[in-house]
Amino acid sequence: MDNQLNDNSQSSSFDCQMMQRCLQLASRASGHTSPNPLVGSVVVQAGNIVGEGFHPGAGKPHAEVFALQAAGEQAKGATIYVNLEPCNHYGRTPPCTEALIAAQVAKVVVGMVDPNPLVSGKGIERLRDRGIEVIVGVEEEACRQLNEAFIHRILHQRPFGILKYAMTLDGKIATSTGHSAWVTTPASRHLVHQLRSACDAIIIGGNTVRRDNPQLTTHGTSDRNPLRVVMSRNLDLPEDCQLWHIDQAATIVFTETNNNSQLRNQLEAKGVEVVSLTALTPQSVMKHLYDRELSSILWECGGILAAQAIADGAVQKIMAFIAPKIIGGQAAPSPVGNLGLIKMTDALKLENIKLQTIDSDILIEGYLNIEK
Amino acid sequence: MDNQLNDNSQSSSFDCQMMQRCLQLASRASGHTSPNPLVGSVVVQAGNIVGEGFHPGAGKPHAEVFALQAAGEQAKGATIYVNLEPCNHYGRTPPCTEALIAAQVAKVVVGMVDPNPLVSGKGIERLRDRGIEVIVGVEEEACRQLNEAFIHRILHQRPFGILKYAMTLDGKIATSTGHSAWVTTPASRHLVHQLRSACDAIIIGGNTVRRDNPQLTTHGTSDRNPLRVVMSRNLDLPEDCQLWHIDQAATIVFTETNNNSQLRNQLEAKGVEVVSLTALTPQSVMKHLYDRELSSILWECGGILAAQAIADGAVQKIMAFIAPKIIGGQAAPSPVGNLGLIKMTDALKLENIKLQTIDSDILIEGYLNIEK
Repeated sequence: MDNQLNDNSQSSSFDCQMMQRCLQLASRASGHTSPNPLVGSVVVQAGNIVGEGFHPGAGKPHAEVFALQAAGEQAKGATIYVNLEPCNHYGRTPPCTEALIAAQVAKVVVGMVDPNPLVSGKGIERLRDRGIEVIVGVEEEACRQLNEAFIHRILHQRPFGILKYAMTLDGKIATSTGHSAWVTTPASRHLVHQLRSACDAIIIGGNTVRRDNPQLTTHGTSDRNPLRVVMSRNLDLPEDCQLWHIDQAATIVFTETNNNSQLRNQLEAKGVEVVSLTALTPQSVMKHLYDRELSSILWECGGILAAQAIADGAVQKIMAFIAPKIIGGQAAPSPVGNLGLIKMTDALKLENIKLQTIDSDILIEGYLNIEK
Repeated sequence: MDNQLNDNSQSSSFDCQMMQRCLQLASRASGHTSPNPLVGSVVVQAGNIVGEGFHPGAGKPHAEVFALQAAGEQAKGATIYVNLEPCNHYGRTPPCTEALIAAQVAKVVVGMVDPNPLVSGKGIERLRDRGIEVIVGVEEEACRQLNEAFIHRILHQRPFGILKYAMTLDGKIATSTGHSAWVTTPASRHLVHQLRSACDAIIIGGNTVRRDNPQLTTHGTSDRNPLRVVMSRNLDLPEDCQLWHIDQAATIVFTETNNNSQLRNQLEAKGVEVVSLTALTPQSVMKHLYDRELSSILWECGGILAAQAIADGAVQKIMAFIAPKIIGGQAAPSPVGNLGLIKMTDALKLENIKLQTIDSDILIEGYLNIEK
């Protein structure tokens, strides 16, 4: 018996290809699985794929179950690939380990172990105990990336926050008059719509509602829209705006007081949910969204709220779209407001930087190394 | 006789290699040749390089002359490569065309024609008239890039302006207290020192002198320093600062008035040149530097002067170093001040964008498509 969890020394380029296929399958449910992870699975018999599956959403069967069903009798003696360690416990569905044992697979190739420290490694152990060969850690980085929100949620009991902004090459998100349509190209905006479709909610502040009256939908790039969230301490919001049209997508307004009960009633009559929190902070909103089983939250707010979210530890990842143009303006807004940092050496460093071009724009992504 | 100038249909990968060698040789005089271009030349006989040369600076022989000298008798029947069309007129030195004819070369491979519309193509014509085969346009884009400042100077009778700045990923060049040491990594700052060594002058404003007291030298990356230029309308500058130490590098202060005659006298006593202009504008300074035969000017100023330089058509190229960090600050300065642009659609677009990573920083370069 081999108790070592990560042993991908026997993994081949074929294994990597199959794991990439798992990730492709997993992504089909992008945006639909929270609080569950994205999982895909492939059954291979004699070098051929004989079954595929993915987890479509919480409460539905896991990826391995679909893949085994598709493989049928051919699962016996086969190798099964899955991007996340098979579960070994009774949750909303029976444990996948038992399904794999019952199907008599010969080998299981796992992308990454379960991030939950309480169960991590238990599924692998169970399979190895029953004489099934298990390889762990194939395409592990890609597997971690796909489920970064799920992993963060499990480890920190908070949703994963992504701050996305679009700025000019001179660091402005709008002109000095507030005009911002558009900073980036249609290709970048299309990518943002896709990003939205992979997220569970989008948060903006009252300023953005009043100034931009945004729609915050996926604009047809997906069959679903994320929850739209507004943070407004005093509920000083317009009586009519696109976000109150809940036939397009659900909207929640978080507020601190009941000052504006008239607007509150109007919003509720339109089907907009209004939630009062004792203290309206990025973390209190994130806590609420965690309790609602959301995993990934996109901050598409202005600089003031963005700074509060960063300072409050509600932002883990930054996606900065940079348009190669100059707008100028000393009073023109930039993406992040006051963080109270005095020295340049105090700046918050981003890690694991990725760079890509999108049409003429540049997208810089990175992770903030601050936890609260 | 073939009058078609650009005919690189016969150029081979060997030709491209030789032209790249010319550019390497030309670059050895980087920063030393203004108002002349950077030119390198290679003589090839039977597939072997038998002579190399480059133009070391104005008043000295041209690249072809050195290459022919090095080749000696082997120049006869050889192919000579040169990144810029050989001159056909008597300037400070005799025409290179006559030297090539006298050396009896068989073939001349030219990177790009002379950008001066008054003489463009005349050298090539002269060579073809004498039965020498001429190929034009090999590695032309790289040739144009190397001499972009020279080309701009010839076509517009102004030096070529490069605005360089370093900002955080949230668009700030300093903290809200003005602290800016350092935004970027040592690798990026080293690249800036190299950039300085290739430029003829660096311009900053009085604010930068007062706040940063910069040295503006190449910090040992080159044996020369560019001219250091300060623009200060009221001559309200410190009595002592690094820029007044002219044993390190020459400094000129441009001003508009003689208000502060006491400081003027002090500066002049230290060997700093003070020039009064009727109207102190980026263009009036550029005109003065053009008349002094300078070609490439690096704007390393703050946002206010940067905006004036852009609006005045004194910036052709932008080099933005972006550090993957967040500093925040609504009042923290950004790289470009007021340009008076109201709509985002009015933003000045950059062209020919280049992207590179320098250690953890990102350098975005592009060209402004505005001429004044």
